[in-house]
Amino acid sequence: MRQDKILNIPAIRRMPTYLHKLLKMQAEGRSSVSSTELAEYMHIELIVVRKDISLTGISGQRRVGYDVNELIRYIKNYLGWDELLPAALIGAGSLGTALLGYNDFEHYGFCINHVFDCDPQKIGKEIYGRKVRHIRDMAECFAGNMPEIAVICVSNTAAQSVADQLVSLGVKYIWNFANVSLEVPPGVVVQREVIAGGLAMLAVKRKQDRMSED
Amino acid sequence: MRQDKILNIPAIRRMPTYLHKLLKMQAEGRSSVSSTELAEYMHIELIVVRKDISLTGISGQRRVGYDVNELIRYIKNYLGWDELLPAALIGAGSLGTALLGYNDFEHYGFCINHVFDCDPQKIGKEIYGRKVRHIRDMAECFAGNMPEIAVICVSNTAAQSVADQLVSLGVKYIWNFANVSLEVPPGVVVQREVIAGGLAMLAVKRKQDRMSED
Repeated sequence: MRQDKILNIPAIRRMPTYLHKLLKMQAEGRSSVSSTELAEYMHIELIVVRKDISLTGISGQRRVGYDVNELIRYIKNYLGWDELLPAALIGAGSLGTALLGYNDFEHYGFCINHVFDCDPQKIGKEIYGRKVRHIRDMAECFAGNMPEIAVICVSNTAAQSVADQLVSLGVKYIWNFANVSLEVPPGVVVQREVIAGGLAMLAVKRKQDRMSED
Repeated sequence: MRQDKILNIPAIRRMPTYLHKLLKMQAEGRSSVSSTELAEYMHIELIVVRKDISLTGISGQRRVGYDVNELIRYIKNYLGWDELLPAALIGAGSLGTALLGYNDFEHYGFCINHVFDCDPQKIGKEIYGRKVRHIRDMAECFAGNMPEIAVICVSNTAAQSVADQLVSLGVKYIWNFANVSLEVPPGVVVQREVIAGGLAMLAVKRKQDRMSED
């Protein structure tokens, strides 16, 4: 069992949101941004924004704010998103399709260039410009074109077997959307995505409201 | 701007995962579970599991572990998931379809019983047993059947206008999957779901690996 400690989880999860906002500002020609403006955009407190940003190692200029281009560079560097990592997606159902259609991934150092499924009706079809190949062709497709990250969007029951195949082919980083705890050998990293995590956050906020109304 | 402080964010986000595991154990007839077993399942440290579970207010029995039924009850109560909240989903694209097909929501106090879109090709169709209605019929559909939570799965450009409509109809809790920061009046709570947050986590783990290899 892998026990590496990752600190600052909420801050790390917020980084793509900062990046998204900053890239928009950059496109609009903005050169600097204050932490106050970022706090308002993020709907969080100023001190939290300052702490988040300090993680990237940038030196803040409190009076004039942060340089937009520089902050983008620091966030990308903090996340290792200054290079574009090739990825494979397994499971071209509705969730997989949604991820393939997600335009912002290219800003997040992430490029899905392999798509696999085992449904004969899907094989050969194109989804947002990527052709769906059969899972049994993974080894062949990966030869000389190894993905850095694999995204598992198959059913809960199929997820472990897909993970086993990916691991045997040498994939080291798995982003798992199936609602199962995958068993992988040491050295392989799994990030399990639990969509309902956000629902839990909303539920707790709702409960706090209810309690303050009483 | 809403500034309510939510503490223990990572713990709250983990709650559905504990619940998922415990419900599976319950279905298998298990009566008790140790924190060690939960730590192994969650791939996190024992002390973190104990801290997470203590948030629910349950009194642990270290020797025999937790009673599965009781822990389920405490987690559900902690999240306010002991009642089933009606929800509306707006945007029946691939992500919306994926959420409609997510079987576990009923365990998470969450039941999507309204689906809206504005694409004529989708109106009237059924997705996992729910008929897609036109967005302009929202007011009519909500009369006497008001959703507690609205899930926004429309495009980034349409999200604010959909949020405005929802707020004007009286919706107070919004789960937003569009990659925009929604402006809402005080008293309305938005949980913004940033799918790329998990990718950032994976990226940081990958970067840690790289640095320890150097």
